[in-house]
Amino acid sequence: MSLKVAQALRKIVGENNVLELPEDVLPYTLDASIIYKGMPTCVVRPHSTEEVSKIVKFANENRIPVVPRGAGTNLVGAAVPPNGGIVVDLTGMNRILEINTVDLRCTVEAGVVHAKLESELAKYGLFWPPDPGSSDSCTMGGVIAMNAGGMRALKYGTTRDWVLGLKVVLPNGEVIKTGSKTFKGNAGYDLTRLFVGSEGTLGIITEATLKLRPIPEAESRICAYFDSIEKAGVAVSKIYMAGIVPAAMELMDKGVIIAVNKWLGKKFPEMDACLIVSVDGSKEEVGALANKVEHVLKESGASQVLRATTQEEFNEIWLIRSEGATALPNVTGKMNVTHDVCVPISKLPEVFKEIRKICEKYGIPVAMLSHAGDGNVHAIFSVNLKDPEETAKAKKAHDEMCRYIIKIGGTISGEHGIGIDKAELLVEEVGPVAMELMRSIKRLLDPNNIMNPGKMGV
Amino acid sequence: MSLKVAQALRKIVGENNVLELPEDVLPYTLDASIIYKGMPTCVVRPHSTEEVSKIVKFANENRIPVVPRGAGTNLVGAAVPPNGGIVVDLTGMNRILEINTVDLRCTVEAGVVHAKLESELAKYGLFWPPDPGSSDSCTMGGVIAMNAGGMRALKYGTTRDWVLGLKVVLPNGEVIKTGSKTFKGNAGYDLTRLFVGSEGTLGIITEATLKLRPIPEAESRICAYFDSIEKAGVAVSKIYMAGIVPAAMELMDKGVIIAVNKWLGKKFPEMDACLIVSVDGSKEEVGALANKVEHVLKESGASQVLRATTQEEFNEIWLIRSEGATALPNVTGKMNVTHDVCVPISKLPEVFKEIRKICEKYGIPVAMLSHAGDGNVHAIFSVNLKDPEETAKAKKAHDEMCRYIIKIGGTISGEHGIGIDKAELLVEEVGPVAMELMRSIKRLLDPNNIMNPGKMGV
Repeated sequence: MSLKVAQALRKIVGENNVLELPEDVLPYTLDASIIYKGMPTCVVRPHSTEEVSKIVKFANENRIPVVPRGAGTNLVGAAVPPNGGIVVDLTGMNRILEINTVDLRCTVEAGVVHAKLESELAKYGLFWPPDPGSSDSCTMGGVIAMNAGGMRALKYGTTRDWVLGLKVVLPNGEVIKTGSKTFKGNAGYDLTRLFVGSEGTLGIITEATLKLRPIPEAESRICAYFDSIEKAGVAVSKIYMAGIVPAAMELMDKGVIIAVNKWLGKKFPEMDACLIVSVDGSKEEVGALANKVEHVLKESGASQVLRATTQEEFNEIWLIRSEGATALPNVTGKMNVTHDVCVPISKLPEVFKEIRKICEKYGIPVAMLSHAGDGNVHAIFSVNLKDPEETAKAKKAHDEMCRYIIKIGGTISGEHGIGIDKAELLVEEVGPVAMELMRSIKRLLDPNNIMNPGKMGV
Repeated sequence: MSLKVAQALRKIVGENNVLELPEDVLPYTLDASIIYKGMPTCVVRPHSTEEVSKIVKFANENRIPVVPRGAGTNLVGAAVPPNGGIVVDLTGMNRILEINTVDLRCTVEAGVVHAKLESELAKYGLFWPPDPGSSDSCTMGGVIAMNAGGMRALKYGTTRDWVLGLKVVLPNGEVIKTGSKTFKGNAGYDLTRLFVGSEGTLGIITEATLKLRPIPEAESRICAYFDSIEKAGVAVSKIYMAGIVPAAMELMDKGVIIAVNKWLGKKFPEMDACLIVSVDGSKEEVGALANKVEHVLKESGASQVLRATTQEEFNEIWLIRSEGATALPNVTGKMNVTHDVCVPISKLPEVFKEIRKICEKYGIPVAMLSHAGDGNVHAIFSVNLKDPEETAKAKKAHDEMCRYIIKIGGTISGEHGIGIDKAELLVEEVGPVAMELMRSIKRLLDPNNIMNPGKMGV
């Protein structure tokens, strides 16, 4: 079977673009979730939408699972093949097809790396606002399929707000174009946003047209330390209530600060929480906003407020944020299992407290790294994944956390998606009617269930 | 039949909330499109989601068309009952259920009038960015079902970007909740945006949770007159290329200016086009932005550039925009038939020229009122709708305009939607594969085709 599949695929993409040797397919058995695994029958590397279409058509006719994959940076197992099948590696489709500086849009293939696009756009003074943490490696197809968020989401929204149109290969191999090249579009059902965030379960995104913005003229970062994380949570609300919409509000708790200090030999104050507020806009605006932010942070009981005035200070402050996740495993000696929940911002103080309580109960060390400005909390569990008992405890803590989040009106995914990780929990959030509607949409588009099966609970 | 239907509905909503006398249902036979008409079997006025659910269940079991309706301000016939059936008047569900000033969100029933919500939010220094022209009468259910746009869309996006979650009665009467109460949400398929803009064909939106923003501290308006509309179109692109993202860029052509002058006895320069640029933000930012905008407009060849410095000047400048559509029929003696196309902004100069050419060919006077900042052009045809020959010519001009717009990469609807008006043209824009996908989604959710049948080409 495997051999026949590889032979058929070679006819489509050429000799060198099909991998089947165990050592060649090994990198495709995992993604950044670490936890989830699967052995593909083979890996195929197409270089055009036409090739993708032929691959999917072949797979559909032969009822073979198809798992689309970019850089595999997602954290929920969305890019692994738990049921085997063909992994479609889209990293070879990496052309930026158009950057239109007059109409403020670009068109990219699925395999374009986010950071590469960012640097190309910067040459023209433009940017695409969503900024996933994995920018250096993640591909735009993955960013869109997972509806990635990032730090700027509180001001600019997430991926779904910045995609104008898509080219998608449907599960039967047909090619569809959605949306338009215009800033506004209202022609028929919103198919674009049906595919954004569908995690490869409804088709393979091969091209996307994106809405761009001029890069803001200036940015300023203000860093505040708090003796309790709850106080920091309250400060986030107070900034909005003062009429300020920052570009980012990032919160790191004591666990993260200590890890960064140890890992990089720094001396950041090891207080219960650090909140970094970033404001962007015109020079005039940024100065005025930064003053207001400082004022609100002091009034909210921050023990220390620092403002970056030089590029060096700017970069230094940001280390707590940018190196936090990397520092943790180096200090704890365990692995990061990063969870992603999101709550109304007024609930943040309570949520920080409760997550710590749940993790303490199960004996799982937890550090908090939060896009606090939109209520998105990444609870990073430190787990020895080689210890089955500890792993099971961590899973229990995770599920308890998710159920608590649902109970208080939050969501089990702010930006990382569902994948395998939360496939069983999803129904508890959305309810049986919405779940069945999602499943029926899946069956409608993919009656043979070949597209990324086993993901999203559909 | 009619009597039996009314009887059954009275059991659900009470004696006084079912209308069936010809004089009572007359207002429901039309919407703001003027062109499209239909006589409902009866009109029902529910006051809760539960009542809506029972109505729809009854209609579905008896295969009776259901047409949801708010204020009927849409311009494409989306709220008329061409196939008869039950019109569900949602204006009685007009409670603002929550305004949460900490979490920057509100929850409203479908019948809440946009302007009413705006004024309630303003009490707390908050606003909901989409701003349809019919704000004074349109209801939030209609705004969402039609994915309304407005003048601020270039900076803030359209309705779909500002809805967090919905309560929807599905065509079988089941009630579904979509989305979340959080700023970010990534849990399953994006059902929220499947219903936003679905024009009542997939279910009835009864409640919505909306994302809010603090009202910007300041706003400034700059008005420029150009001796050719093409030059004004180029100026729009130049503003973006200077790194400015205004809150609105509204363009009115000579026809509109002349009509406003005649109608209100004003003396606005009767040049080929007037462009009003609005910038918002902090006081500091607005001052700086307004200076830049003035500079760009002068450089783009504007014959005259005026800046509103007092509230009176601000209101005066805005008259050309706010009274334009009202002034036209009073001056032409004919009716406005307002069309809505959208193109990449670089195409604006060409589009203005071509639309005038097409209308001249068919002898249909046209005035242009454009949300130029997002490429959205409202071509207002002056037509005597009582003259069948003239009406037919206007239709021909419309279709030719739409086909031209599709050809140059635009969309046949920027914000008004499809309704009956463009139901047959839609496939020409989206293509047969996307059209069939839309139809199959419609069949999936509404197998008996009871929900607003005959709309959107589905």
